[in-house]
Amino acid sequence: MENFIFKSGTRIVFGKDAENTVGDHISKFSRKVLIHYGGEYLKEFGILDRVIQSLEKNDIEYTVLEGVVPNPRLSLVYEGIKICKEEDIDFVLAIGGGSAIDSSKAIALGAKYDGDVWDFYSGKAVPKMALKVGTVLTIPGSGSEMSESSIITNEEKNLKCGIDCELIVPEFSILNPEMCYTIPPYLMSCGIADILSHLFERYFTPTKSSILSDHLLEGAMKAVLEVGPRIKKEPKNYDNCSEIMWLATVSHNGMLDAGRISDWASHRIEHEISALYDITHGAGMAIVFPAWMKYVKEENMERFEQLATRVFGITDKKDKEELVDRGIACVEEFFKSLGLKTRLAEAGVPIDRFEEMALKAIGDSGYIGKFKQLTEDDIFEILKLAI
Amino acid sequence: MENFIFKSGTRIVFGKDAENTVGDHISKFSRKVLIHYGGEYLKEFGILDRVIQSLEKNDIEYTVLEGVVPNPRLSLVYEGIKICKEEDIDFVLAIGGGSAIDSSKAIALGAKYDGDVWDFYSGKAVPKMALKVGTVLTIPGSGSEMSESSIITNEEKNLKCGIDCELIVPEFSILNPEMCYTIPPYLMSCGIADILSHLFERYFTPTKSSILSDHLLEGAMKAVLEVGPRIKKEPKNYDNCSEIMWLATVSHNGMLDAGRISDWASHRIEHEISALYDITHGAGMAIVFPAWMKYVKEENMERFEQLATRVFGITDKKDKEELVDRGIACVEEFFKSLGLKTRLAEAGVPIDRFEEMALKAIGDSGYIGKFKQLTEDDIFEILKLAI
Repeated sequence: MENFIFKSGTRIVFGKDAENTVGDHISKFSRKVLIHYGGEYLKEFGILDRVIQSLEKNDIEYTVLEGVVPNPRLSLVYEGIKICKEEDIDFVLAIGGGSAIDSSKAIALGAKYDGDVWDFYSGKAVPKMALKVGTVLTIPGSGSEMSESSIITNEEKNLKCGIDCELIVPEFSILNPEMCYTIPPYLMSCGIADILSHLFERYFTPTKSSILSDHLLEGAMKAVLEVGPRIKKEPKNYDNCSEIMWLATVSHNGMLDAGRISDWASHRIEHEISALYDITHGAGMAIVFPAWMKYVKEENMERFEQLATRVFGITDKKDKEELVDRGIACVEEFFKSLGLKTRLAEAGVPIDRFEEMALKAIGDSGYIGKFKQLTEDDIFEILKLAI
Repeated sequence: MENFIFKSGTRIVFGKDAENTVGDHISKFSRKVLIHYGGEYLKEFGILDRVIQSLEKNDIEYTVLEGVVPNPRLSLVYEGIKICKEEDIDFVLAIGGGSAIDSSKAIALGAKYDGDVWDFYSGKAVPKMALKVGTVLTIPGSGSEMSESSIITNEEKNLKCGIDCELIVPEFSILNPEMCYTIPPYLMSCGIADILSHLFERYFTPTKSSILSDHLLEGAMKAVLEVGPRIKKEPKNYDNCSEIMWLATVSHNGMLDAGRISDWASHRIEHEISALYDITHGAGMAIVFPAWMKYVKEENMERFEQLATRVFGITDKKDKEELVDRGIACVEEFFKSLGLKTRLAEAGVPIDRFEEMALKAIGDSGYIGKFKQLTEDDIFEILKLAI
């Protein structure tokens, strides 16, 4: 096992009507907050009203900044930072999924910094302070509600960059499974694909000793495979929604993979696709992962065998190669069963900018990935396999 | 799934030589600490010296209170409280396993309370403040290094009582797997039994929807079954020790069972045995659990079937009853394979105080357990099954 430091300080408040307590939780930290969100559905379903009522009950002042979109934009982050500085706001409350939360985290960082917040995302500066952040999660998938990550799209430069930083771990996150009832089926499928991709990134590791974390990650994957079809069939079943909401959080809060090195090449490749073509992140992951698996499998066939047997329960294949390929096929079939595309062509992504994406993906380091180090050429080949 | 609130704020610092950083971690909280521990081996193996060096490097003053024993005693807790109050100490650093940590947590509670600290354990009062606690873990098993629990033995009254309270969750815990090299094989086996018992308590639940937590708990159990024999064979293998150390923490920090109700009857029964006969807690659990399983299995045969098939991989039993019994037999065999006794008689526990133990176990509520509510009579029968 690798050395590690693990801390996950977010208070998770899970259950029906939990959003009505948001004011109580904020009141421990702040009297003046920025409410930050995207979708109109928050008004439509009364979620925003309930949150505001809870703030007012606790005499907490608030300013609202709406307009978050998937692949959240830097321009809106700048707007949020300006409001926080001008109005002396010290807490950002995100309502929504990964986009609203990541945008809120960026605002929290920028509000305590004199320079350009993009410096943190481009690696030019390291954050020293941030406003506190809390979340009311409405779309499971990103895991941002309990993570130290934020990913922002710089729309001027066509760049999508992320940062990991303990300062932006949310103080609390409110998880009411009933929020899932408002999610369109396609977005829910994207969320499920995102969850599974977070588990895959951790599963494919160069770390040799990983008995416990293998079993935990496999357990979480099996839960995804079990809950996915259920939620497709009964999207407004409370128990199904509970399972998927907590799965999303657990899969990305760092505990299942403590002590092992994760890969993250597939995420980097997907970021380049969605930076150019603005497709939903989870939808992109369903395309990239099968292709990545096909390309890297020979790096460690035993790992792919273990996935095939322990997670997909394949027992009737004697031939190693056949077993591995059947496992990868199961991954692709699962994404398809959620109604997702698994090829770039199906998603309307043309083939003419692969070189550009590959070059941007490797960044300054010259390679990405830890399970197998991928060069620009490797990424190009993976994109070709994804056509 | 059940509603829940989850927070686990302990910073885990995991890896070789991690204890040399203890001073850096304390310096964020305190300049004056009580070092609290038991075993002489801490001096012998230089662990205490290394901790003290790290404190001195950070100009942190310290007072030492040694003498913790398994089933930690209230009298020593009183002594620690007195020292903290007299010397104006604001941080308790535990070095050791569950006993040293639980004792330190009790001292932390008592040092900020004018009454008798036992009030908290007897349920007469609820703590409002506590000193901060940190740990250097040397024996995995109890999970106390990341939990909100503390269990203390009141030796005058022959009582062993526990408290759960967020105030005593350690600020940090240092986990260096090499510490396991100093543990006598029998104590390591007791620790492994304790870990498995923490997973069983959570696994046997009345909660209906538990897809994710079932898979995670089963994953952790499979890891115990895999690592247990390895560590018995190679007790000084770093990877084996890493796995068991992190397993102990993960199994008891509340994340694997968030959203489900746990049982805990077996722990209550064991506490009565060790309060009277002072046997090591994990050794007691290896005796109580097989008996408890035999007695309660009819409450939910499907759950026991799931344990038998998913965890022990039993596939050759067609008959439900036979499958369940085989699963329970596997549990007992695993404990035996660790060199532990699985019967009271083998452990030298006489049969003449079963009624007294049963009565004390149910306490004021009149019953224990959630998977199946157990009365005094039920506990008596379970103890008989354990002879």
